[in-house]
Amino acid sequence: MWGGRFAEGPSAIMREINASIPFDKALWRQDIAASKAHVAMLGAQGIVSDEDAEAIGNGLDRVAEEYARDGVPEDWDLEDIHMTTESRLAELIGPVAGRLHTARSRNDQVATDFRLWVRNAIDEVDAGLVALQRALVARADEHAASIMPGFTHLQTAQPVTLGHHLMAYYEMIRRDRSRFADARKRLNESPLGSAALAGTGFDIDREATATALGFDRPAANSLDAVSDRDFALDYLMAASQCALHLSRLAEEFIIWASQPFGFVRLPDSLSTGSSIMPQKKNPDAAELVRGHAGRVIGCATALMITMKGLPLAYSKDMQDDKPPVFEATGLLALSIAAMTGMVADSEFRTERMRQAAELGYATATDLADWLVREADIPFREAHHITGAAVKRAEADGVALDQLPLEVLQEIDARIDEHVYRALSVDASVASRASYGGTAPDQVRMQVARAKAQLSEDE
Amino acid sequence: MWGGRFAEGPSAIMREINASIPFDKALWRQDIAASKAHVAMLGAQGIVSDEDAEAIGNGLDRVAEEYARDGVPEDWDLEDIHMTTESRLAELIGPVAGRLHTARSRNDQVATDFRLWVRNAIDEVDAGLVALQRALVARADEHAASIMPGFTHLQTAQPVTLGHHLMAYYEMIRRDRSRFADARKRLNESPLGSAALAGTGFDIDREATATALGFDRPAANSLDAVSDRDFALDYLMAASQCALHLSRLAEEFIIWASQPFGFVRLPDSLSTGSSIMPQKKNPDAAELVRGHAGRVIGCATALMITMKGLPLAYSKDMQDDKPPVFEATGLLALSIAAMTGMVADSEFRTERMRQAAELGYATATDLADWLVREADIPFREAHHITGAAVKRAEADGVALDQLPLEVLQEIDARIDEHVYRALSVDASVASRASYGGTAPDQVRMQVARAKAQLSEDE
Amino acid sequence: MWGGRFAEGPSAIMREINASIPFDKALWRQDIAASKAHVAMLGAQGIVSDEDAEAIGNGLDRVAEEYARDGVPEDWDLEDIHMTTESRLAELIGPVAGRLHTARSRNDQVATDFRLWVRNAIDEVDAGLVALQRALVARADEHAASIMPGFTHLQTAQPVTLGHHLMAYYEMIRRDRSRFADARKRLNESPLGSAALAGTGFDIDREATATALGFDRPAANSLDAVSDRDFALDYLMAASQCALHLSRLAEEFIIWASQPFGFVRLPDSLSTGSSIMPQKKNPDAAELVRGHAGRVIGCATALMITMKGLPLAYSKDMQDDKPPVFEATGLLALSIAAMTGMVADSEFRTERMRQAAELGYATATDLADWLVREADIPFREAHHITGAAVKRAEADGVALDQLPLEVLQEIDARIDEHVYRALSVDASVASRASYGGTAPDQVRMQVARAKAQLSEDE
Amino acid sequence: MWGGRFAEGPSAIMREINASIPFDKALWRQDIAASKAHVAMLGAQGIVSDEDAEAIGNGLDRVAEEYARDGVPEDWDLEDIHMTTESRLAELIGPVAGRLHTARSRNDQVATDFRLWVRNAIDEVDAGLVALQRALVARADEHAASIMPGFTHLQTAQPVTLGHHLMAYYEMIRRDRSRFADARKRLNESPLGSAALAGTGFDIDREATATALGFDRPAANSLDAVSDRDFALDYLMAASQCALHLSRLAEEFIIWASQPFGFVRLPDSLSTGSSIMPQKKNPDAAELVRGHAGRVIGCATALMITMKGLPLAYSKDMQDDKPPVFEATGLLALSIAAMTGMVADSEFRTERMRQAAELGYATATDLADWLVREADIPFREAHHITGAAVKRAEADGVALDQLPLEVLQEIDARIDEHVYRALSVDASVASRASYGGTAPDQVRMQVARAKAQLSEDE
Repeated sequence: MWGGRFAEGPSAIMREINASIPFDKALWRQDIAASKAHVAMLGAQGIVSDEDAEAIGNGLDRVAEEYARDGVPEDWDLEDIHMTTESRLAELIGPVAGRLHTARSRNDQVATDFRLWVRNAIDEVDAGLVALQRALVARADEHAASIMPGFTHLQTAQPVTLGHHLMAYYEMIRRDRSRFADARKRLNESPLGSAALAGTGFDIDREATATALGFDRPAANSLDAVSDRDFALDYLMAASQCALHLSRLAEEFIIWASQPFGFVRLPDSLSTGSSIMPQKKNPDAAELVRGHAGRVIGCATALMITMKGLPLAYSKDMQDDKPPVFEATGLLALSIAAMTGMVADSEFRTERMRQAAELGYATATDLADWLVREADIPFREAHHITGAAVKRAEADGVALDQLPLEVLQEIDARIDEHVYRALSVDASVASRASYGGTAPDQVRMQVARAKAQLSEDE
Repeated sequence: MWGGRFAEGPSAIMREINASIPFDKALWRQDIAASKAHVAMLGAQGIVSDEDAEAIGNGLDRVAEEYARDGVPEDWDLEDIHMTTESRLAELIGPVAGRLHTARSRNDQVATDFRLWVRNAIDEVDAGLVALQRALVARADEHAASIMPGFTHLQTAQPVTLGHHLMAYYEMIRRDRSRFADARKRLNESPLGSAALAGTGFDIDREATATALGFDRPAANSLDAVSDRDFALDYLMAASQCALHLSRLAEEFIIWASQPFGFVRLPDSLSTGSSIMPQKKNPDAAELVRGHAGRVIGCATALMITMKGLPLAYSKDMQDDKPPVFEATGLLALSIAAMTGMVADSEFRTERMRQAAELGYATATDLADWLVREADIPFREAHHITGAAVKRAEADGVALDQLPLEVLQEIDARIDEHVYRALSVDASVASRASYGGTAPDQVRMQVARAKAQLSEDE
Repeated sequence: MWGGRFAEGPSAIMREINASIPFDKALWRQDIAASKAHVAMLGAQGIVSDEDAEAIGNGLDRVAEEYARDGVPEDWDLEDIHMTTESRLAELIGPVAGRLHTARSRNDQVATDFRLWVRNAIDEVDAGLVALQRALVARADEHAASIMPGFTHLQTAQPVTLGHHLMAYYEMIRRDRSRFADARKRLNESPLGSAALAGTGFDIDREATATALGFDRPAANSLDAVSDRDFALDYLMAASQCALHLSRLAEEFIIWASQPFGFVRLPDSLSTGSSIMPQKKNPDAAELVRGHAGRVIGCATALMITMKGLPLAYSKDMQDDKPPVFEATGLLALSIAAMTGMVADSEFRTERMRQAAELGYATATDLADWLVREADIPFREAHHITGAAVKRAEADGVALDQLPLEVLQEIDARIDEHVYRALSVDASVASRASYGGTAPDQVRMQVARAKAQLSEDE
Repeated sequence: MWGGRFAEGPSAIMREINASIPFDKALWRQDIAASKAHVAMLGAQGIVSDEDAEAIGNGLDRVAEEYARDGVPEDWDLEDIHMTTESRLAELIGPVAGRLHTARSRNDQVATDFRLWVRNAIDEVDAGLVALQRALVARADEHAASIMPGFTHLQTAQPVTLGHHLMAYYEMIRRDRSRFADARKRLNESPLGSAALAGTGFDIDREATATALGFDRPAANSLDAVSDRDFALDYLMAASQCALHLSRLAEEFIIWASQPFGFVRLPDSLSTGSSIMPQKKNPDAAELVRGHAGRVIGCATALMITMKGLPLAYSKDMQDDKPPVFEATGLLALSIAAMTGMVADSEFRTERMRQAAELGYATATDLADWLVREADIPFREAHHITGAAVKRAEADGVALDQLPLEVLQEIDARIDEHVYRALSVDASVASRASYGGTAPDQVRMQVARAKAQLSEDE
């Protein structure tokens, strides 16, 4: 493998292991922005002349134009995006370019650039999550009263509404968004001006660069600022939890799309067919979303391990912060988009869902609750009576609400005709009207609240 | 292994794999509190009679007293803390105990109990972190002007102050506390009243139980509420990052305590000696803190994996949420306490630190900066001149500030006697007075700000 | 939290963080065995007198008897199992006990004890895996010709036999066993005699102690021997893969036991019922097995992180090797036992399985293959024809083998009556007789080979 | 982010999430080889005509030539390397290309290709590890008698030889190689002929394709063969342990290269300098190796999580097997190469090492052992006497072997002039001549054994 690649010996190895430009070129917009903010401040403080500051600022704009047009050149000898940009700047504007690096260091520069990148990623992930929430809310609204079996242990337990089920994911995504928002807030301190590790003797204005870059304030300790990667971990952890939620939703779509369940017809655009079995649709996108959760968590794990036990301040190990963040971002963005499409465009086979809910005596709990509530029978006894009724229905091959009243009264004389209000799946879900419950009215309230939250966010 | 243990066959296996009482008995205080809040609400809503509610409430108090006095009995047949308590309650107050379970389920019960436990753990961790911050601030104040080498790549880079170095950890812990606070806020919604998964048909008052238990509000979706373990993951992730910070501090103590460094004498109470080498002190506690980071992260990883791809609502896999949370809490509590003691009671060998800072030409950057700032020499040229000066000092076996002026002027004529203001380590640190920099005055400002923050927290 | 616990200050913290006796007492048998081997060697080499060696050996036997009878006392001041044993030995036989520690150190002692423990765990896990393989083979034999749908993407793809499906897990477990066997082989080198790190000046016989303890040879480098934990990682990684396999099997049982699938009736002994819904069986054991995979992998992750970046030789971080190994062992043992019971005692509902296989046009591939094989139609064209046939069958609401010949010939004239041999699910599985294929005869061959392997192992 | 990218809607998302060609094109050599073996077998078995088989074989050679010359085209609509190759083959040789896919499926094809790729990676990693072992052995030979401090807890414990220390890593790498060899052996079964999941009705010869591709045998169960990724996990776990070993070696180089230690001068080619501090060398390569351990373990974790709970047979989640394997391979290859260069080309500053060993009373254990061995003083008493001697030496500011005999005899009268044989660091290391110990003769024996093993391997 490296017989060939490393034939030139250690320097070839070093060139390859050391170069971050293959991945950190993704930071170019942030690098330009941070450099412009820095040089403007140097000019304002009189650390470089106004002229030089202007020349550098204009030069940076030209470099940015080139990058936007032609991409960032990948010259391993220039190691990283910072040196690539500085070197191109020097070619364009001459030695004055050297003044840009006054009162800063690659250590605070990379910390600043990367924070800006992550902050932007958070904003874009949030936009994606809003789209997913909108899709969930729209479908929940549509299916506020559609009956499906509610599962525990993947066993039919009680009937629920599909809208209620979908709104559960709305809540998960709400927490994800709040987690990303927390990460963004904690991240939003500017390392710029920390220099290599100790701050600088130049009379810089860290408030000014912080403000120019949209940070809330400058970071309070320069040693910490260059050796901190909490913001990347916060982001990866939020991404991991989000990916976990999506993996759960994906698992449900996969199970629901199986022939024995048949609860959903996946959109053609997000499944693959088979020329040979035209009726078959493989839930590829959902499976990849489920699989991606593994890789996103792997990214978070990687960076945690890399950071373990690192003494202050900057260590080169930290260069391994970017690949996991970039990889996780790509995987998460795709996963969110795929699940949004899946939620928005799937056809829910509500008749199959209802049918499954009606099998399995899912209203047994309702019978027991009715006995407690209406006949004042103690809980445990009510359970016993219900068990007997279910056994009888099973023996007779009928649903609970198809048992004649006299049969029910044989089991327990306290049962009367009002019991049937509790025994159908519709009655069951309608009754569960406690706050946050599965009753259509409750679901509609959840939907209304969610819509209000979503429009507030705008 | 299970030849013996499982000789009775599958039911012995089931009994062992299913029982959570060996660990979830840790939830007993929360279980009692949640049950009391629940039954009080049932009484207030007229779902059970006032009499019954009172009997149950009093009975729960009696159970709590027994647990406090004798511990929680560990009967595997009663599976978990909920059934253990209910069973004891029934023994004490008779069949009325059965009414306690009206309108709730083990699914919302365990979700409620565990949230309360985690919330309490967050509060206790926070108290520990405050103590650690106090220790850091006190030592930083004491050593605001003590000189040590600042490292990048574990190479001497620039002199810094020990106070500045310690305050970097203050900042990390500040972020940890904010992370735990965010977790606490997001956690603080009450699952109680979600019942098995679908809500309930009883006319319960979820606001009332939420308020009674100190929650901010009831959770909005019952399916989500019983199948959500985000709060445990948030906690474990905050714990992981905190453990990572402690592992970095521990690594530094270990390196500093090595003979070649000799920067610190560890407190006897937190190191182990050797009868045979009385001068040797092993930094056992620091090593265990560093090692524990692995296990805390392992706990977070475990729960993420367990939650991956679980369909709604409750699945028994979720029972594996508690052991990692309990384990991580114990490890983190010990780690915080150990590092607090280490910071508070170590003897910093400041003369050794200063000596190390004076070796290694750590003020080379200061010379370069001086050339840029005072002699208006471009950055790159200043670097070249500095390199020449360092080489000469090395050849002569002296420190930079011991080079005579004429020697420096030989290297570059623009250097004058004012340069010496920049070349000593004291001058160097004093000059780095940018916001967040290492200058003693900056450190004192950081310390003052930290003290203010800490007293605000009280 | 540690307000109370650590009120005595740092020494209370140190006592708690440093003590390993709460968990390493599990090593007592190994500690006694290794000590006996060591002292016997010291005697044989004349390093201690025969008399002393005998006294110590007898003393160790007495300590072992006490431990077996009363348990290992847990005195934190004695820190670990080694000092606990030595201290008790001294109480029993007086100062001569001190000679036991000649030419060894806690570093090689713990490395030796722990290897012996892990070796034993491997042997016990292997026995458990054999039992699981036996169960799989027995049920595969029974169901060599039972038809079920074979899934890809959880979509019905082709009919397979249940026996074939079960034998897939036999293969996974076969690899697990080979992985544990490899780990055992690599582990089986004796650290004893490495002393603290550098070897010893006493004229010890490391071959002798290695042989006495069943090791293949002494470890070749003393520094490596005391700082190596590869054997624990090998074990945890084998355990992780095994847990992953079990999680897959568990997932299948959970899905199969769902009402819409209904492929299996779980044994009462390994599921939990509901008093209220007597027909419902929650697959708790399977869910716990699936969940445990997360924790086992968490254990492996923990130790990897702990070992990262540790300089030679012994560091106290390594004390964190044991809890993950012990935890993973308990979880894996239970998981293996539970899945063995599940495989052995579940009732496979073969009629439901066959019915599901007959739906979904699972023999479409067989039709296409028949067209290629018998009518020499190119693959792609054959796919096209098949697609048309499936569509027609779907429209007519019949299975593929229920389409009349004239209908098939309308679609493609080259189809003749022999095609029906390929279209039934029985014909389909019978035809897949390539080596390792799903045909009942192939399954029986796999079963026979497995039985032969299993009896060889005895 | 996906505002733009996914403007076309779900199908654009699907195209991107589904396409594996961006990474699986790395499998092209394996894909061609497996296809050639397959078609040759189809020809030999008469399943396709000899002519067609030859046309396909030649066509595949032409595709391979194109790939080698121009790279693999990356057309997302062709999804993966298999369809890319088949499509190009059809362009080159027409519809006969379609016969290649007879009796196989993408499921067995990708499993076969990927196994071949991993097998090749193992062979290349092994070659890299041999080079590293050679470097270790050469430097160990050179430094068989060079004295350095042996550390426990990073505290000077006993003098050791540098050769001994380096040979510890030889042992770790030996285990790594054995782990990769085990993985290779377990991997080496051919999935080809398993078809989609159930085997095939064509009369194929799986032995023939297995042999042609260098596999030991065909996989025994087709369902297992297409859904098994153990081989990738085995590989990633071996890679993880290897990366951990390298992280430990890297950590040592980083610490040794620090100014306070000064044990090593890193090769210029594998460190970065500073124009401003010419004497400073940053151990970048070592830090990146240490950091990479995190990412390699992250890759293993990712795939474990992805595989958790997947039902049989093929699921699309498994497509996420390749990126972690490819990433880990690149990182590990670089890490091995970098550490090989570091070991081979570093300058060990043996005088600094010896000096550090002479400080710190590292021979205290030797004194205690001498007292036990020569003066027959019980261990514990010997420890006490030694402690007194060390204290005295410390008070007098001298090394242990500089204490005059009369001073030692004051401490204990049983000490005589022979004691000095034990007190120098040279005497100490020479005395530790137990098997595997640090004595130069023992190290030379280890070196000789290693050289013999390495030449056997050729």
